[in-house]
Amino acid sequence: MIVSGLLTSVAINFALCTIFFILYSVLRKQPGNYKVYAPRLLFEGRAHRPSRFKLDRLLPTAGWLKNAWQPSEDDLLAYSGLDAVVFMRIIIFSLKVFTIAGFIGIFILIPVNCSGNQLQNIDLENITNNSLEIFSISNVNNGSNSLWVHLSAVYLITIIVCYLLYKEYKYIASKRIDYFCSSEFQPNQFTILVSNIPVPKGTTVGQNVENFFTANHPATYLSHVVVHRKSKMWTLTNAAKNIYRTIINFIKMPTEQQYMRLVDHQHDDLEVNVRKDHSREEVRAAFVSFKSRYGAAIAINMLQGNNPTQWLTEQAPEPQDVYWPFFSSTFMGRWISKLVVIVSCALLTILFLIPVFIVQGLTNLAQLEIYFPSLEGILTMSIVSQVITGYLPNLILQVSLKIVPPIMKLLSSAQGYISISEIERSACHKVIWFTVWNVFFANVLSAQAFSLIFIFLEFKDIPSKLAVSVPAQASFFIAYVVTLGWTSTSSELFRVVPFIGHILSKPFVKNSDDFTVPSFPYHQDIPKILFFGLLGFTYFFLAPLIIPFLLGYFSLAYIIYRNQLLNVYAPKYESGGKFWPIVHDSTIFSLVLMQFIAFGIFTLKKLPKATTYTVPLPILTLLFNEYCRKRFLPIFTAYSTETLLKKDREDQNRPGMRQFLARLGAVYQDPALVPVTYSRSQDGLHEPFIHTAVRS
Amino acid sequence: MIVSGLLTSVAINFALCTIFFILYSVLRKQPGNYKVYAPRLLFEGRAHRPSRFKLDRLLPTAGWLKNAWQPSEDDLLAYSGLDAVVFMRIIIFSLKVFTIAGFIGIFILIPVNCSGNQLQNIDLENITNNSLEIFSISNVNNGSNSLWVHLSAVYLITIIVCYLLYKEYKYIASKRIDYFCSSEFQPNQFTILVSNIPVPKGTTVGQNVENFFTANHPATYLSHVVVHRKSKMWTLTNAAKNIYRTIINFIKMPTEQQYMRLVDHQHDDLEVNVRKDHSREEVRAAFVSFKSRYGAAIAINMLQGNNPTQWLTEQAPEPQDVYWPFFSSTFMGRWISKLVVIVSCALLTILFLIPVFIVQGLTNLAQLEIYFPSLEGILTMSIVSQVITGYLPNLILQVSLKIVPPIMKLLSSAQGYISISEIERSACHKVIWFTVWNVFFANVLSAQAFSLIFIFLEFKDIPSKLAVSVPAQASFFIAYVVTLGWTSTSSELFRVVPFIGHILSKPFVKNSDDFTVPSFPYHQDIPKILFFGLLGFTYFFLAPLIIPFLLGYFSLAYIIYRNQLLNVYAPKYESGGKFWPIVHDSTIFSLVLMQFIAFGIFTLKKLPKATTYTVPLPILTLLFNEYCRKRFLPIFTAYSTETLLKKDREDQNRPGMRQFLARLGAVYQDPALVPVTYSRSQDGLHEPFIHTAVRS
Repeated sequence: MIVSGLLTSVAINFALCTIFFILYSVLRKQPGNYKVYAPRLLFEGRAHRPSRFKLDRLLPTAGWLKNAWQPSEDDLLAYSGLDAVVFMRIIIFSLKVFTIAGFIGIFILIPVNCSGNQLQNIDLENITNNSLEIFSISNVNNGSNSLWVHLSAVYLITIIVCYLLYKEYKYIASKRIDYFCSSEFQPNQFTILVSNIPVPKGTTVGQNVENFFTANHPATYLSHVVVHRKSKMWTLTNAAKNIYRTIINFIKMPTEQQYMRLVDHQHDDLEVNVRKDHSREEVRAAFVSFKSRYGAAIAINMLQGNNPTQWLTEQAPEPQDVYWPFFSSTFMGRWISKLVVIVSCALLTILFLIPVFIVQGLTNLAQLEIYFPSLEGILTMSIVSQVITGYLPNLILQVSLKIVPPIMKLLSSAQGYISISEIERSACHKVIWFTVWNVFFANVLSAQAFSLIFIFLEFKDIPSKLAVSVPAQASFFIAYVVTLGWTSTSSELFRVVPFIGHILSKPFVKNSDDFTVPSFPYHQDIPKILFFGLLGFTYFFLAPLIIPFLLGYFSLAYIIYRNQLLNVYAPKYESGGKFWPIVHDSTIFSLVLMQFIAFGIFTLKKLPKATTYTVPLPILTLLFNEYCRKRFLPIFTAYSTETLLKKDREDQNRPGMRQFLARLGAVYQDPALVPVTYSRSQDGLHEPFIHTAVRS
Repeated sequence: MIVSGLLTSVAINFALCTIFFILYSVLRKQPGNYKVYAPRLLFEGRAHRPSRFKLDRLLPTAGWLKNAWQPSEDDLLAYSGLDAVVFMRIIIFSLKVFTIAGFIGIFILIPVNCSGNQLQNIDLENITNNSLEIFSISNVNNGSNSLWVHLSAVYLITIIVCYLLYKEYKYIASKRIDYFCSSEFQPNQFTILVSNIPVPKGTTVGQNVENFFTANHPATYLSHVVVHRKSKMWTLTNAAKNIYRTIINFIKMPTEQQYMRLVDHQHDDLEVNVRKDHSREEVRAAFVSFKSRYGAAIAINMLQGNNPTQWLTEQAPEPQDVYWPFFSSTFMGRWISKLVVIVSCALLTILFLIPVFIVQGLTNLAQLEIYFPSLEGILTMSIVSQVITGYLPNLILQVSLKIVPPIMKLLSSAQGYISISEIERSACHKVIWFTVWNVFFANVLSAQAFSLIFIFLEFKDIPSKLAVSVPAQASFFIAYVVTLGWTSTSSELFRVVPFIGHILSKPFVKNSDDFTVPSFPYHQDIPKILFFGLLGFTYFFLAPLIIPFLLGYFSLAYIIYRNQLLNVYAPKYESGGKFWPIVHDSTIFSLVLMQFIAFGIFTLKKLPKATTYTVPLPILTLLFNEYCRKRFLPIFTAYSTETLLKKDREDQNRPGMRQFLARLGAVYQDPALVPVTYSRSQDGLHEPFIHTAVRS
């Protein structure tokens, strides 16, 4: 690719972004679109429909940019919780790192690269005619001493990133403790989930739980709720009824009164069903509540029974975060399903690209002509052939990649996690590795994902293979950042899919106040940000030209995510920044990959001394990582005795504590088994809003 | 090697064993040797010197065999603790496994191997003239269907071993809990070691510990002892004094009175020194005692401070098990020394054979003649050249291997463990991997240890490489088992080194009652047993001829170890069978290695279907291992709430509990800092016997 080619691509994508921005600026102001662009404000009653039409509504304005920029971190924390703050800090962290990297890259490395002539001399007269490669390390002469500059850059960036990572980990860890200390009474702080409860014949789960905890935690045990599982029959009947009800709803558009009568009727039916199944479908798991946070923590951290596979204890999720459908009762069942999911996830990651490549192969013109001879006339038309060969394969790949996060979430939810937050965190992990494997390695080594395994089995050849292939893909990845980063992130702002759904549903649902406040899809968006980070680290010293485009992406992301967090998304759960360790680990992986490639590059460029000097880098980086794991990770899994006791003592005599504890038992009930109460007020959510009820 | 060669070697070693047995049967009865052969009985006053000479004393008798055989497992448990029982069960486990394996091998596999003619037909006329190889799998024809017998044997033995491992793990785990439940009050059950205590300026360690535990464990905290470190100066002075004292002892042979006066004098000196150093050398660690076992367990299992690298807690070792010399004060210090030890241990393992090979190379006659031309006359003598070329290289290797366990123990003790038992367990681990790497792999792949790394980097070629080389080494390893197993184990019985020391010291020390009761060297002997187990598993289906020799070794080991545990060794500490998980893991490793080699063999023998059928084996074995880790391993790291509370409640009102708790604080004092009291009674040990004092 030459410079002018790059400039064209950048111009097209920049134009697209601008269009999206302008469209958003206008469309967001139309009251009919409030449900799409500000559902959270609407839900909280903070968005008022304008009383009369103003011309201003049709003009693009930038006021929302100021609104998105203004709130401080504390405001965001109060409004959207610690998870949102941590998410924004990931972007800020990337901005910091790549500003420094960009400075080094553009003012030091690019001049050094251009001064070489391994590939060709720079053509200063007609700058846009130069190949992009002369800005990359490929243009530095073999054995040249200027490679030492690159080595120093790698060292420098490693040190800076490690310092920033350490600072960030420390800050988020302290924020996590502060957040816990300043939190209100929360049911999950006092409750644990006990699973695999041994039930001798002739006894019930409840009896056993009661006996065990009265005997072993007499001072702190408060109450328990046994978990119930809907029988399969019940689940099926229920699902069928739900679908039927939804269709009826849409077709008949009943008045509110009719609707409520229908619901009441079904509700009676359901309750009879539930009571019938009640005794039969007890699961060997229970939510056990304690009088103090410290009491609950002790029960979590200590081995309870003499058989370590029984009386398993873990922190209960927030009530609204519980993933009810999955309560596999036995230890073995949970373990086996976990293994099956891990294997199928690995297989999916490895084999995913094969069907994609086959479908892409079908878009090969010659083959199509063979399969569908009747289409020959159409296929020979120039525009059709251009669309089919140039655009379709990429579209297929992109659409296939869009399917991945939901699939990974589905797999994670079959893995036996008991909370939505854990499912999403695990899906996040899976998507990261999927992207690194199928987008980075498959593209860089230009191999099908399956044959990659064999490449990776020959461990010692990897650095040199990467060193040959990575720089050559620089222009591909620049295009990738511009298209997938800039354009797709601005289309996020535009909320294309919800908007289309909204427009399509308009003719059918005229008067409905129905809308959902979505929860933030961390498991989709964090992997994207981390993948761009990976690109930044690996290309920083190979082809620094990518960095400015990445900086563009991160700045865009900063504004847009601050805006879809403030107006659109409501926090569905609060994990207290538990995403950060994933981010930390991925950054360390990116750093080590960068150092590996550096090792390969210096070998290839015949500077053996520099090769030797890169060896300590990954070792020191991994040691740093190990230190961070010891220093900070425990804070993200449990709170300390010191903190728990302090919080307990503070709350001991606070008003409301007694009532709170009295109501704890009622909080952890499967919403499917609780008598359904649809709120008649305007701001009713679709599920019983237990959490807020208890907090207040 | 042909059969007659093997028979000769067996005969020689068998004769040696018999001589050792007869020698032992006579020598053990001489009162002068009681210190060597029954120091424990002597120490406990259970060995009486015979009143007058009997002829019987000079005749070899087998009464001791009966004595060694008789005690039941419960007797052994009462007499030598759970560690000794677990050790004996390792041998019994091996006996069980290899009896079954031997049955399958001799009655099924050897006939199948002999019926093949890939190498040659069996010569029934002159059985001793056959090569050993026709009894091995090498003689089975390529692609022959009889290889399915071997595959079934591999499956069968895997299933049997897994079943036995599971049963054993379960049994030992339950024994461990029983042992804890039936134990007397033990200081370590009520005490934890707290390290890396933060000490703000102007405060002392003691103040901080007192404040922290009174605040956070008000109901259960009892007392604490801050750990002190001897200053370097003091250590040096002390070491010098010790050496001086020992020399004086040996030369002057003072009477008891003289000796005690000397000691008293030095004691005063020491105390002055210690008091001087006392305030200066406080370490940021303390032994903290609790009123109940459960209270101590909570403090161990919970994160104490908000900084996970401070207030680190772990179970205190038994007082006599504490390894005082090492108390690195900072978290980082301990961590770095651990890393350094791991690296140096890996380097030692990898590079160890290089100097050995060089020294062995020096015994090459031609080279010797070049270096020392004056020796040419001697070197050409037939007997000298035979000794130098045939015997010396092996001797050098064996002696070098003898050095390894002490080195590994030294390394482990620098790793930051705070108890002797942990040091020995860690050394045990190290010696196992050292032996597997440097004896098994280095011999099998006939490569120097260093080049092994490169072989192992090409992962996918390993099974076929092993399949080619392992069967060829069968006769070498049979000789190894016979020499190192039979002969060296019987020479253990004979206690050659202590005996020689005893004989040599006789002319100098005429009247001294000085003797030591040694503690059992688990870290030397468990690796040996496990290595022979590894040989058994890998050769079981390759060359079953090795199994009877192994069975011989394990039977010998059973008698001998039961005998030097009952008469010689006193338990120095009790880890409650914590060695078993190491044994379990190594057995699983051996099984998987066997399956890997089977994979390679079936590929080599051109039976691709059988190759495919071996693939599930390692996967299932590793899953079984993972299950065992989840099901049993937690029992070996901590006791359950259920057990702890039961034990606490039982003891609550027992007589002596109050006095026991009152004396707890005095128990954990560095013996080097406690006023030295040499017991004047005959059975005095060399260190203050705090442990027994507290227990009684």
